[in-house]
Amino acid sequence: MRSPPKILAFDVFGTVVDWHGSIVRELQRLAPQVDGDAFALAWREGYQPAMQRVRSGELGWTRIDDLHRLILEGLLPRFGLSHLSPAEREHLNRVWHRLDPWPDVLAGLSRLKARYLITPLSNGNIGLLAQMAKRAGLPWDCILSAEVFRAYKPDPATYLGVAQVFDVSPSKVMLCAAHHDDLQAAAACGLRTAYIERPLEFGAAHMKDVSPRPGNELHARDLMDLAGQLGA
Amino acid sequence: MRSPPKILAFDVFGTVVDWHGSIVRELQRLAPQVDGDAFALAWREGYQPAMQRVRSGELGWTRIDDLHRLILEGLLPRFGLSHLSPAEREHLNRVWHRLDPWPDVLAGLSRLKARYLITPLSNGNIGLLAQMAKRAGLPWDCILSAEVFRAYKPDPATYLGVAQVFDVSPSKVMLCAAHHDDLQAAAACGLRTAYIERPLEFGAAHMKDVSPRPGNELHARDLMDLAGQLGA
Repeated sequence: MRSPPKILAFDVFGTVVDWHGSIVRELQRLAPQVDGDAFALAWREGYQPAMQRVRSGELGWTRIDDLHRLILEGLLPRFGLSHLSPAEREHLNRVWHRLDPWPDVLAGLSRLKARYLITPLSNGNIGLLAQMAKRAGLPWDCILSAEVFRAYKPDPATYLGVAQVFDVSPSKVMLCAAHHDDLQAAAACGLRTAYIERPLEFGAAHMKDVSPRPGNELHARDLMDLAGQLGA
Repeated sequence: MRSPPKILAFDVFGTVVDWHGSIVRELQRLAPQVDGDAFALAWREGYQPAMQRVRSGELGWTRIDDLHRLILEGLLPRFGLSHLSPAEREHLNRVWHRLDPWPDVLAGLSRLKARYLITPLSNGNIGLLAQMAKRAGLPWDCILSAEVFRAYKPDPATYLGVAQVFDVSPSKVMLCAAHHDDLQAAAACGLRTAYIERPLEFGAAHMKDVSPRPGNELHARDLMDLAGQLGA
């Protein structure tokens, strides 16, 4: 490896936490008759188009909590959940604050934290990320979010913002993510990249291809493997 | 007490960490011939006027790291330290990242964290606060800073910003600070207030009057006392 990074910035949805499994479990409790797998996938499918409305300027700055709620309102009739009260809708929307980490995450982050400064770099809002970390015990050194930079990934302001916050060159920051497009955008800004395999991101019925691609500096099975590769 | 707050936001310099003692100790190692007490007080005296230049618009948004450096450059000749190299000046400037917490802080914050979401609300920049927390072991749930809101306390955008980040009313946020002016500005925005006694903030030679004032909801000897009063 080149000279080691100082800051590890983590994508969160899919990389650190299992949004699909967590939403399926929530639906199972709330409405067992609903197809939780389809519901979770549909909610997440609305995510990029919703952020695009912000990126394009059609919507002013809007937090992910509010974008998730917008998408949810469209889903409820499709899944026979129109009877949910406003309070129930709000509680369901907050499931994104209650996502469970993948099994390797707490131990992996603890090892990495002993040697590096670890922070999320997520499109999730600060409050969402802080509540998620508190509930799950994610030991972040601080919480960086699109909300801090008022720009959504893959806007360069987010990747370069991490380096600026810590007053280091982009080459001292490594983005760790389960998504090649995120990593590619970070690399274009001069950040280092580590791909994390999350074959179950979309559920066991929709296995993801996690084979290595040449563009990434590191390729790790999970965060324990990453800690080993980074000498932590 | 009224219905309890959900979020505890802490002033940092003086309230959580002992800037005076930490700078005196740093100077003692670096330049024992210098009057560390006078040096620390002079550095801190430059702080409000420097932020005022940002608040007034004379300077664009400038982080505390850079304001501390501006002030430091003016102090070095006065204290016979003009011989310091650029690297030594930068290292000395980063003493604000290496401030030690008061003795009650780690245990007090750990207790409070079990029941409340705890965050700094400091004029210090995010990188400074994150490095300080990592070195000292401050167990923040997230790191909020003037840098997030692009405004310095006592600008209402900072106090109200905490409530907005967590999507709660200002009355669910309690500012904990050793400075009455900070607390007064927070109260004017609808936040709750807890005064923390820090009689040694300016050093043992300059004891601070820490007697209770009627405007504050709570008055605590230290963070252990605060934890007791808040049922944590």
